[in-house]
Amino acid sequence: MSQLSQIEVAQLQDTTNSALYGMFRNCCLAVLNSGVDEDDYEVLFAPYENFDIKLVRRERGVKIELVNPPEVAFVDDTLVTGVHEHIFAVLRDLLYMGNKYAFTHKSAPADSVSITDMVFDMLRHAQALEGNDSLNTVVCWGGHSINLTEYKYTKEVGYQLGLREMNICTGCGPGAMKGPMKGATIGHAKQRYKEGRYIGISEPSIIAAEPPNAIVNELVIMPDIEKRLEAFVRLAHGIVIFPGGVGTAEELLYLLGILMNERNAQQPFPVILTGPAGSETYFEAIDEFIGTTIGKEAQSKYQIIVDDPEEVARVMRTGLGRVKKYREAMGDAYSFNWSLKIEEDFQRPFIPTHQTMSDLALHHDQDNASLAIALRQAFSGIVAGNVKAEGIQHIKQHGPFRLTGDATLMERVDTLLESFVSQQRMKLPGSAYTPCYTIEK
Amino acid sequence: MSQLSQIEVAQLQDTTNSALYGMFRNCCLAVLNSGVDEDDYEVLFAPYENFDIKLVRRERGVKIELVNPPEVAFVDDTLVTGVHEHIFAVLRDLLYMGNKYAFTHKSAPADSVSITDMVFDMLRHAQALEGNDSLNTVVCWGGHSINLTEYKYTKEVGYQLGLREMNICTGCGPGAMKGPMKGATIGHAKQRYKEGRYIGISEPSIIAAEPPNAIVNELVIMPDIEKRLEAFVRLAHGIVIFPGGVGTAEELLYLLGILMNERNAQQPFPVILTGPAGSETYFEAIDEFIGTTIGKEAQSKYQIIVDDPEEVARVMRTGLGRVKKYREAMGDAYSFNWSLKIEEDFQRPFIPTHQTMSDLALHHDQDNASLAIALRQAFSGIVAGNVKAEGIQHIKQHGPFRLTGDATLMERVDTLLESFVSQQRMKLPGSAYTPCYTIEK
Amino acid sequence: MSQLSQIEVAQLQDTTNSALYGMFRNCCLAVLNSGVDEDDYEVLFAPYENFDIKLVRRERGVKIELVNPPEVAFVDDTLVTGVHEHIFAVLRDLLYMGNKYAFTHKSAPADSVSITDMVFDMLRHAQALEGNDSLNTVVCWGGHSINLTEYKYTKEVGYQLGLREMNICTGCGPGAMKGPMKGATIGHAKQRYKEGRYIGISEPSIIAAEPPNAIVNELVIMPDIEKRLEAFVRLAHGIVIFPGGVGTAEELLYLLGILMNERNAQQPFPVILTGPAGSETYFEAIDEFIGTTIGKEAQSKYQIIVDDPEEVARVMRTGLGRVKKYREAMGDAYSFNWSLKIEEDFQRPFIPTHQTMSDLALHHDQDNASLAIALRQAFSGIVAGNVKAEGIQHIKQHGPFRLTGDATLMERVDTLLESFVSQQRMKLPGSAYTPCYTIEK
Amino acid sequence: MSQLSQIEVAQLQDTTNSALYGMFRNCCLAVLNSGVDEDDYEVLFAPYENFDIKLVRRERGVKIELVNPPEVAFVDDTLVTGVHEHIFAVLRDLLYMGNKYAFTHKSAPADSVSITDMVFDMLRHAQALEGNDSLNTVVCWGGHSINLTEYKYTKEVGYQLGLREMNICTGCGPGAMKGPMKGATIGHAKQRYKEGRYIGISEPSIIAAEPPNAIVNELVIMPDIEKRLEAFVRLAHGIVIFPGGVGTAEELLYLLGILMNERNAQQPFPVILTGPAGSETYFEAIDEFIGTTIGKEAQSKYQIIVDDPEEVARVMRTGLGRVKKYREAMGDAYSFNWSLKIEEDFQRPFIPTHQTMSDLALHHDQDNASLAIALRQAFSGIVAGNVKAEGIQHIKQHGPFRLTGDATLMERVDTLLESFVSQQRMKLPGSAYTPCYTIEK
Repeated sequence: MSQLSQIEVAQLQDTTNSALYGMFRNCCLAVLNSGVDEDDYEVLFAPYENFDIKLVRRERGVKIELVNPPEVAFVDDTLVTGVHEHIFAVLRDLLYMGNKYAFTHKSAPADSVSITDMVFDMLRHAQALEGNDSLNTVVCWGGHSINLTEYKYTKEVGYQLGLREMNICTGCGPGAMKGPMKGATIGHAKQRYKEGRYIGISEPSIIAAEPPNAIVNELVIMPDIEKRLEAFVRLAHGIVIFPGGVGTAEELLYLLGILMNERNAQQPFPVILTGPAGSETYFEAIDEFIGTTIGKEAQSKYQIIVDDPEEVARVMRTGLGRVKKYREAMGDAYSFNWSLKIEEDFQRPFIPTHQTMSDLALHHDQDNASLAIALRQAFSGIVAGNVKAEGIQHIKQHGPFRLTGDATLMERVDTLLESFVSQQRMKLPGSAYTPCYTIEK
Repeated sequence: MSQLSQIEVAQLQDTTNSALYGMFRNCCLAVLNSGVDEDDYEVLFAPYENFDIKLVRRERGVKIELVNPPEVAFVDDTLVTGVHEHIFAVLRDLLYMGNKYAFTHKSAPADSVSITDMVFDMLRHAQALEGNDSLNTVVCWGGHSINLTEYKYTKEVGYQLGLREMNICTGCGPGAMKGPMKGATIGHAKQRYKEGRYIGISEPSIIAAEPPNAIVNELVIMPDIEKRLEAFVRLAHGIVIFPGGVGTAEELLYLLGILMNERNAQQPFPVILTGPAGSETYFEAIDEFIGTTIGKEAQSKYQIIVDDPEEVARVMRTGLGRVKKYREAMGDAYSFNWSLKIEEDFQRPFIPTHQTMSDLALHHDQDNASLAIALRQAFSGIVAGNVKAEGIQHIKQHGPFRLTGDATLMERVDTLLESFVSQQRMKLPGSAYTPCYTIEK
Repeated sequence: MSQLSQIEVAQLQDTTNSALYGMFRNCCLAVLNSGVDEDDYEVLFAPYENFDIKLVRRERGVKIELVNPPEVAFVDDTLVTGVHEHIFAVLRDLLYMGNKYAFTHKSAPADSVSITDMVFDMLRHAQALEGNDSLNTVVCWGGHSINLTEYKYTKEVGYQLGLREMNICTGCGPGAMKGPMKGATIGHAKQRYKEGRYIGISEPSIIAAEPPNAIVNELVIMPDIEKRLEAFVRLAHGIVIFPGGVGTAEELLYLLGILMNERNAQQPFPVILTGPAGSETYFEAIDEFIGTTIGKEAQSKYQIIVDDPEEVARVMRTGLGRVKKYREAMGDAYSFNWSLKIEEDFQRPFIPTHQTMSDLALHHDQDNASLAIALRQAFSGIVAGNVKAEGIQHIKQHGPFRLTGDATLMERVDTLLESFVSQQRMKLPGSAYTPCYTIEK
Repeated sequence: MSQLSQIEVAQLQDTTNSALYGMFRNCCLAVLNSGVDEDDYEVLFAPYENFDIKLVRRERGVKIELVNPPEVAFVDDTLVTGVHEHIFAVLRDLLYMGNKYAFTHKSAPADSVSITDMVFDMLRHAQALEGNDSLNTVVCWGGHSINLTEYKYTKEVGYQLGLREMNICTGCGPGAMKGPMKGATIGHAKQRYKEGRYIGISEPSIIAAEPPNAIVNELVIMPDIEKRLEAFVRLAHGIVIFPGGVGTAEELLYLLGILMNERNAQQPFPVILTGPAGSETYFEAIDEFIGTTIGKEAQSKYQIIVDDPEEVARVMRTGLGRVKKYREAMGDAYSFNWSLKIEEDFQRPFIPTHQTMSDLALHHDQDNASLAIALRQAFSGIVAGNVKAEGIQHIKQHGPFRLTGDATLMERVDTLLESFVSQQRMKLPGSAYTPCYTIEK
């Protein structure tokens, strides 16, 4: 942000009292807590009530001033360079781009074409596209709360991907979002691979629960969960999904809903579900849930590999080869998947309230893509109720969300969620989990 | 331009039939003739009537297709890389930025703040600011039509500047705009200076008369002469002025008019007028003209050095030291001179027609800055009548421009212009010069 | 090694049947097992009896051909780049430099000046000096066999050093030689420090027991343990010593023996002994041993810090500041500590046999530096008997080494060694340790 | 030379009173006069009789101190960086390598294999090989004293080579050694070619007459003319020969003598003789001389192109393509032509004295290669008599060299030399030429 015009500087300063600025402050606080293992935003933020961040005009640019910041971000009184970069990434994405696209206003991009253009523009402006045309970006999804065996497995998969010179993109945060990056670091080091990218894509309402880990060397903040998901799938050349909870289920449903679109039928898009020995039953459950809800076709879009990190990396490599061939043949861009058709329903923000949650169309009287949308939204709402500030407030005031619908379907949803609870995938271990939802069958 | 959004690509293609596109085509043709010594746009363009340039969507970007381009731009059927870069600079500045700022529409930036912001944004987007914070950019002005002794002198000055690791920015084209760059190249090579910049700033109506020479490694096209002048003075850390004709006089008056502004009084801004042995009388004439028209104070803003390239370079080095001290003390940016106050009158485009030319307030019943503006506009109109397409058309249809005003003042103007004619500074030597103006005293 | 003359290529090929070549083969095999946690060379080498390595002339250079290499060095049938580099480092140091300095011949450098010059030349040729003038190379010594708490502590110290942009140099291998590098990697990543160096210095007889870990990005093989120790202390700007066994004790005695030399009295040389909570008694024992054997002065050369990685890093930073000041004032080189006086007795190779071991002058009738030398040699012999091929053969044939000397002194030695045994510092845990020595008091 | 061992520093200082040091001083003085157009070493050196250069130990390296150096090498009291580099190149090649290879002693490499190895080692040590594997190094030979038309032509050829991304290597100095470099600079700039190399290869006895021009960015000093010629032909991927005098004739005969060797018959080696319009008769004379002395086969080794710089560049490009194919097929190195067979007779230094000159076997009773050697030596002697210090002394004392031999042959030699004299190719224009030889037919 070294080169700002005077008008831009003035605009940034004008935001100081806006809703955007509140978001900005909180994201910065989360970033300053980078590396702290805590997913309860209240616990995380409590000690820093009088934390503040100010923008100061200087040398015709902008200087950031931190008031009462967490000590953990400093080494001998100097801000860690990586954290410094992250703070500027937040400024760049939330304030600068937030101004440009009027994030918090009605005039924000709303139609499908404009939304995709904005997602592109934000990634370009964050310089996330420049290094993305080697067709080696693997997005890794999975739980922030996983057990040690699973965590080690995600590291091992990252290591094998890194040895084969693939880069890692995750949602920032601990668990399955950190492991693959750590592993890839070692793989890259062994191969003397200098272009190692560890991209974290977050959004304001989740970043406090999942602050960027130490390895992230490119941070992008998208305005909401739907833009974040679109950024993932348009940036990705392939996706690996580790065991996780409702968040991971949300991501999987979003992805399958899109891949089931006829207009995406020809496009190769490697998706691998994988976990360590012992995760067979977990994946069987997921697979059965997918099969019995949104259908067999959806099942054909991914491959399950259990306890074989090398095989995961090899299959991904082969898949990326097909992606390259396809994009070359089609004249598609390498760095951003413009061709992927994403229907507007997948892009429109879903704001979980007791009303919107109980209104969800959770039944089979619709096509599978529409059901995928509704299910994704249901899971999205539960994530909010679990870890996002606004969601937690709702639950505190009005009790758990009520999900209703088709009995068999609700049964299946219930079973899946129960398994997440019993496997401690809802919150970081150590805390007892009280469901933020009830299911009425 | 490798990363364009689909909306941007569509917008570029939409320009195909616009006025902007005509400009774009002509600028590209001029760039493709890079290195050809010709300042008569009709002669230059005649052989390429069926030249065309097309924008083709490809790999989600834009490809440029040239139809019947000049052979001189190719080596063994491959476009010279430098010319290729220049073509993309034209696309970037005229089409992409032209769209953004609606160059040809009423909504184009018109107030002082917006104009300066646009000038900044265009230079930033052209990446001309990134390398500009070493405070070593010397803008060189002077005639495109100068004699061999003068040309060699400009090379020698450039060489001495280059030996002292200063970079060169000129208006593109031959003569005093090429010499300093050539000289600096050798100076830089001897000092193993790797960051050598040879910036050319042009505008659509002049580029055909002054196509970028071979050395230019950064090309920027501003929308009109006033923006171009502003780009020069805000980018410059110092200015050297060689002998020249009306164009050079225009530049000098513009610069002095600004430096005379009280709000710029404290700001160090090294300006050196220099030429080879024998140019004493030329500079005496200029100096006297300045002194007797816009006043003694204006004379204090520059230093005249005759026949001493080393001294020019040494004085400039010292001056740059003062600039650095000042900007540091003020907290001013190094790469763009935001602090320089430029009144809106200096920024507003002057379009020379027979009406506007004869309306010019060429008298002493005004302050010196206003007179400087009027004189600059008069000279600007004569440049147009000499070498710019539109100006030449006007003259062809309606005869020479008529300049009227205060008798003594007109006498001085006449004397100056006469001297330019007799010294062959109006057009490249070889062609007889027919004045495009009459002076009524 | 891309540029070799024909004579050099011929010389390399001539080595094929030499003693040097046997060493070369074994070092390569160790390097190919990089990352395998095993310190028993027989177990490590057993599966690869018919492993071979050949030098093939090609394109006027040399190509290396591997016959039956360990699979672990390959990813999908391609040699890992880092391992590839290590193999060439072995070729460069053992064969090329081994030829130049006639390692295995009588004509090898033997006087003090020539030995130091060779150490310099080998480090320069390995390009280990080029990046060494930032005065931030911290040599870390400590056991290859340490417990998990200690290992995590070495990682944490490395992390804190890395956060402060210091580089790590160790002896290659697991334990305290790997931990600091791993930690520094993360510290460097967080600070976006791009010049991270993880230098491993080994020698032929130890490398099989301590193959370079995955992080080492510069590998140097010195011809013997004495040259290796000299390389460490001349390259180092500061030294951190973690808990370890006899090898670590050997290193500490070597270092103190040198620092006690009057001619090194003025030279600042930060030495920190550190370990996690619980290591107090370990360090008390070491400290007492030093105090009661080679004296109080020796104790003043180091600082003990328990359980405070940040403090270790801060103290080291401050120490490096003093080193910088001193070298600047003295006009000393930054990249190689020429000024450090090392007496010839410290440089001369000690070859442990039953005779040389029992001949060691382990008594107080000599100055402290001489006693330090004798003690270092005693410990060096025990390291050989524990993990080096030749030493192990000696023990198998003739039983344990016999150490004799002054009763009190022998008592102290015995106590120290006993503590190493009981703390499992002699060999990797899991194997029972049979002492390769007896102490006669 | 930043990394020197103490022994190396001591050796450098030991040279201070040696013959080598005299050479070193003179080469440095020549380098400091870089850019001065003067080929008379006495005129060049006269003003600097009390010039001296000293080596000072500092920071364990070596600092160079200049006493009474020429002002032309300085800008505002600071040595020009390029000249600084050249001074260190002289130190590196003459003192450091001169020590290593005992240039001035009997033990200097004398057999064919050792000489080639030394040539390789010197080029490698000068880092001239690293960038030489793109197979685009064109060696340009030709007169230092050429007329303006010819000079412009050499620039134009350099420009066309540069546009096609070929690099230039010449013998340093003015005329045909400077022109191609200047032209290539512009060609490289237009193509934004960043790896532009302008290699100058000189030797102590000629450098005073041909100091490196401003463009040379890599300077190598070989110990004598024969090593210099070998460096040229082993580094070159193709050779362009411009009009010149005896020096150029010497080079051409050396080259043809080698290319006629049967063992080089298969090797593609593009050689182009070229000059501007009007040079036809010059080349006819040369061509006839070659044909009637060393034979028709020799004529088949080159191609003559008159007045067509583009064609020269295109033919060279095509030739380099064949070189690439050949070296690939043969497994030959790209950066150094090891395969080229050079007989020892071509490598052995020829020291021209009245005795050796009159002893030359200038007759047809020998094979053509032997005759080529004798003729080359004759021309070499005349170059010495013209411009080299020692040669000029000989002539002053004993009168002109006497060349005798076969009458027809001597007739041809005489005719050729006469034409050089009449075309002013012996010395820079302005000075009258007194032949340093007589021919007895």
